[in-house]
Amino acid sequence: MSKTDAPHRFVTAAEMQVDTLPWGPHEWLCRPGLTDASDLQLVRVRMPAGTGHAFHRHPELEEIIYVVDGEAEQWVGETCRRLGPGDLAHIPRDEVHATYNGGSDTLVFLAILSPARSIGPALIDVSGEAPWTTLRVSTGDAP
Amino acid sequence: MSKTDAPHRFVTAAEMQVDTLPWGPHEWLCRPGLTDASDLQLVRVRMPAGTGHAFHRHPELEEIIYVVDGEAEQWVGETCRRLGPGDLAHIPRDEVHATYNGGSDTLVFLAILSPARSIGPALIDVSGEAPWTTLRVSTGDAP
Repeated sequence: MSKTDAPHRFVTAAEMQVDTLPWGPHEWLCRPGLTDASDLQLVRVRMPAGTGHAFHRHPELEEIIYVVDGEAEQWVGETCRRLGPGDLAHIPRDEVHATYNGGSDTLVFLAILSPARSIGPALIDVSGEAPWTTLRVSTGDAP
Repeated sequence: MSKTDAPHRFVTAAEMQVDTLPWGPHEWLCRPGLTDASDLQLVRVRMPAGTGHAFHRHPELEEIIYVVDGEAEQWVGETCRRLGPGDLAHIPRDEVHATYNGGSDTLVFLAILSPARSIGPALIDVSGEAPWTTLRVSTGDAP
């Protein structure tokens, strides 16, 4: 383990920092304190079947979701697409979005955010507000 | 094909833009003109065995290299590491770096750059300058 050697130029399973969240482990591979990140953050999420990260927005961050393995039910605004390995979603700064595991296997995806720091809150949960509360049910995407 | 519908929020094999370069096809999944990219670019490179992208720097761009498949001989400055699937390199703005296919199979990796545009040249090739000219031979990393 070389966590004490940060900032790293190379990050493998030995150096990554893992956060445990309700929608699966978050394996941080690039963020301040781990690398010399200024403009880029990258976290690999391993989302179990039946879970998801409900509708939210990042007021100061642009984001990419890149699917590594499994199937994502990916929302950007009020539009939903099923994404597979190698597919990408682009989420402009402050746009509402959500990611659910759309299959029966673990969904693995990269969330890439820019810049590497926020001055205000990094994330605002809007999952309890209209139209996001009922969107998945009304479109038939909810299981 | 929906290339005329850009900017896209979702990019799959049907929407991506492919550039052909000497070190393999570059599959652009996020860049201005394809998405509403402001801070993020993402390109997937399929690098054949025996090829590489020699030492260069991006004066205005921070970069992440994320290995999807195969083995990379990845340089950041004068340091080399062999990276496999799931491993990452972080390259601060203007730092010299290079990526070679370090195995016998096609190397597939993501290059993620920020911001999405440069005012000056996006890339400066330094592969003909010392110490980069002889570095791989002197360290024994050249095939």
